[in-house]
Amino acid sequence: MRTTNELYEQYISITQKAADFNNAAAVLGWDQEVYMPQKGFAHRGRQLATLATQAHELLTSELYGTLLQELAGREDLQDVARSNVMLSLEDYQKGKKLSAAFVETLTEQTSRSYGAWIKARRDNDFAVYVPELERMIALKRQQSDLYGYPQHPYDALLDDYEKGATVTMLDPVFEELRQQLPPLLGQIAAAPQVDDQFFFRHYAREKQFEFSVKVLAQMGYDLDAGRQDYSEHPFTTSFAPTDVRVTTRVDETNLASLLWSSIHEGGHALYEQGLPEEQYGLPLGAAASLSIHESQSRLWENCLGRGLSFWQHFFPILQGVFSDALANVSATEFFKASNKVAPSLIRTEADELTYHFHVMIRYEIEKALLEGVLHPRDLSGVWNEYYHKYLGIAAKDDLSGVLQDVHWSHGSFGYFPTYSLGSFYAAQFYEQAEKDLPNLKEQVALGNFSTLLQWLRIHIHQYGRRYRSEELCARVTGKGLDVSCFLHYARQKYSAVYGVELKA
Amino acid sequence: MRTTNELYEQYISITQKAADFNNAAAVLGWDQEVYMPQKGFAHRGRQLATLATQAHELLTSELYGTLLQELAGREDLQDVARSNVMLSLEDYQKGKKLSAAFVETLTEQTSRSYGAWIKARRDNDFAVYVPELERMIALKRQQSDLYGYPQHPYDALLDDYEKGATVTMLDPVFEELRQQLPPLLGQIAAAPQVDDQFFFRHYAREKQFEFSVKVLAQMGYDLDAGRQDYSEHPFTTSFAPTDVRVTTRVDETNLASLLWSSIHEGGHALYEQGLPEEQYGLPLGAAASLSIHESQSRLWENCLGRGLSFWQHFFPILQGVFSDALANVSATEFFKASNKVAPSLIRTEADELTYHFHVMIRYEIEKALLEGVLHPRDLSGVWNEYYHKYLGIAAKDDLSGVLQDVHWSHGSFGYFPTYSLGSFYAAQFYEQAEKDLPNLKEQVALGNFSTLLQWLRIHIHQYGRRYRSEELCARVTGKGLDVSCFLHYARQKYSAVYGVELKA
Repeated sequence: MRTTNELYEQYISITQKAADFNNAAAVLGWDQEVYMPQKGFAHRGRQLATLATQAHELLTSELYGTLLQELAGREDLQDVARSNVMLSLEDYQKGKKLSAAFVETLTEQTSRSYGAWIKARRDNDFAVYVPELERMIALKRQQSDLYGYPQHPYDALLDDYEKGATVTMLDPVFEELRQQLPPLLGQIAAAPQVDDQFFFRHYAREKQFEFSVKVLAQMGYDLDAGRQDYSEHPFTTSFAPTDVRVTTRVDETNLASLLWSSIHEGGHALYEQGLPEEQYGLPLGAAASLSIHESQSRLWENCLGRGLSFWQHFFPILQGVFSDALANVSATEFFKASNKVAPSLIRTEADELTYHFHVMIRYEIEKALLEGVLHPRDLSGVWNEYYHKYLGIAAKDDLSGVLQDVHWSHGSFGYFPTYSLGSFYAAQFYEQAEKDLPNLKEQVALGNFSTLLQWLRIHIHQYGRRYRSEELCARVTGKGLDVSCFLHYARQKYSAVYGVELKA
Repeated sequence: MRTTNELYEQYISITQKAADFNNAAAVLGWDQEVYMPQKGFAHRGRQLATLATQAHELLTSELYGTLLQELAGREDLQDVARSNVMLSLEDYQKGKKLSAAFVETLTEQTSRSYGAWIKARRDNDFAVYVPELERMIALKRQQSDLYGYPQHPYDALLDDYEKGATVTMLDPVFEELRQQLPPLLGQIAAAPQVDDQFFFRHYAREKQFEFSVKVLAQMGYDLDAGRQDYSEHPFTTSFAPTDVRVTTRVDETNLASLLWSSIHEGGHALYEQGLPEEQYGLPLGAAASLSIHESQSRLWENCLGRGLSFWQHFFPILQGVFSDALANVSATEFFKASNKVAPSLIRTEADELTYHFHVMIRYEIEKALLEGVLHPRDLSGVWNEYYHKYLGIAAKDDLSGVLQDVHWSHGSFGYFPTYSLGSFYAAQFYEQAEKDLPNLKEQVALGNFSTLLQWLRIHIHQYGRRYRSEELCARVTGKGLDVSCFLHYARQKYSAVYGVELKA
């Protein structure tokens, strides 16, 4: 009989080999978005598919399943090793619920739906998208049934992005927001408005980029283990904790475009750089979940990056770079402008508060689509009703409405809620960090982020996938998901921004 | 029984899948040289190894061997398909001669020898390199025995880089050079010397780079299917004919550094872009050989790029960019300076004529090392004797002597001769192109390279690996390798450069 050590070595070997293929695919993906010449698309798709298939074959093979089962039964399997094995087994068993034929059908449909979405956007013609979306939803419904679910078919899909999340858990969270946010927004709307016009002056491209790299470095992003480049849509990608890259975009007449995307991706990247290198390719070397990933990006972007202390340090530097555009602006004015609240049509451009209505709308729509009570053909109308109801605005067309996000065309139903969960966890983590580090604000105001980063490394990053989101949150803050913490953070912050005392 | 078509489809599927892994590895390799942050090395090595192993396993599997054998026996296999299958079978059978254990030993020794070479260079201490080089040579000798060879053990290694090349073929070629080049060089040395000092004025980095991209585009390099970046050592890499990238380097006080490397790599890249896309990943979609590849880079760099007609077009443009540095220089002076002949120590910086002594010296040394009549410990002394004998110069240390090239540390014995063969084939192709295209010089002087590129596409690029080097040369020019053609080209060209009639 082979020893537990031998079996575990074999487990590591297969799992890390699969990670090599996936990480190689990530390099090809990065290159595709950042530097690949246009005609490179011709063969890049098949190269990516070959890599993905190879990784998938390794991780769904009978050999791998047997190995995991045998390891799970070994009593002498140590703590960390057991954690890796149990998580891999969980993935394996979930993956096995979908037949190869089903996965292929889904992949093909993704390609068709995505094509239809592109076409619908190009022609601003939602009808083109409807039949392909309908087919996609039918497949996702089938996927729910194959996975099985406790109560709502949507639960099974949520679980792909956020293990353990269910409609039962999310409904009350969004209900609380539905109750609490509107009065808050009402008070803000009634307060004297914030001036953010100077954000739209001229800011030279290279100077913006250079400034953002300085900010990233100061945040603690290791530029010897990463780099920032331009891409159409900002993203973070990791090939190992020693090579984690971010991208950004620049709009010369809107400083916000680069600023928040760069700090946001920087937060994601700090998480990836902080994952334990010795767990390369294994579950404990991977991020806990999408919501925890998003908590890191939003903690840096919103709690810190849109905070007054942050700009007490950085604003004089920024002003030095853009002395004309920011001539008569103060750090406090800059902080306020960074937090202007106003209902808007595009999710990715929304402020920190109204953002959650964008998510809530998608969440309600996804549930209804999965339940079958809403047909894709009626989506555009329902979308506009919701935007009118919650944000009091109407899209001028589907491009700025129901066609704005790529997610559904990719079959990513259940993904949107993780964005909001990320904000809520961020607020909880930030509150705890402020308790644990009483001088945090002063340190941030001096441009010192290392204590906070160290705190994040110790309390969150080092664990990889060891704990699920809520369990991790409970370990760090003493309680699970608690949206009231976000609301408290919001009231405090926006009282300062709008100079009025906001009440619950 | 499966039809020939079915078998051939399976052959294509496996071969192209292996190509996907190799091309993905090429993307990772490009990234490593061009953009990867320093710490990325930590896990990049294992990712590259995983990809290479996967490709290797596919192409050495019993399944693949059986498939190739069966296809080779099918009488209804069509022309192009047969050509692919026979070439793959040849590769397969050669690969099978080396056991997996031997390949692993060789890979490990490569890593050790390369490490020792780096160390020896860092400390300028050749002795550190000797034992690792000795082990490498013993392995290469063993590799020869495993391959088997007609006459000389070196033949088996040559065959890895240049199918069909042997000592019997190369000895007379280098003997002819040994006879013919010295009198030519003597006449050049006695002639009034060329002034190339203006090459060493100040040339701004970005402007040099921009100019080289213009030249590449004009040559016909498709920038929608490629790009140029900076790297320490210039190279060309291909992920498919639709994505072929070049790199260059810039020295602000030596225009030559960028200029010749960029045109040289451009020649390689035009070849890769011209390979038949529908043969992706198959032998007929790959370059004929190293020497034919080098013939393309050298034809563009030397025959064209260092020709008067080329600069009749480009010099006014270059002068417009660098109006200070090139104020009092004419196109003819620029052409002459581009072809200054002088013995030098570093192979990669040598002129078109003395270059071949550098190769000849390495060729003689490699043969002697393989025969066992020369021991690595005596290499440094022998190296300097040869340089004194053929070039009349002495290295001040091993860095500019025996330690200058990486090749032996990689186990690449038999590689150097392909550089010289490339020059000879280039001269033959160029002579033929001039016959076939009577207005070639005039077109080049007008900056029109499309007719020549078309000629190269039709006569050389489109065939991939279909013909071996000499056979391809014979099909294009009517005869096999003929070094006298190069010597004729050299006499003509350098008569113009030095303004004296050079005689055989």
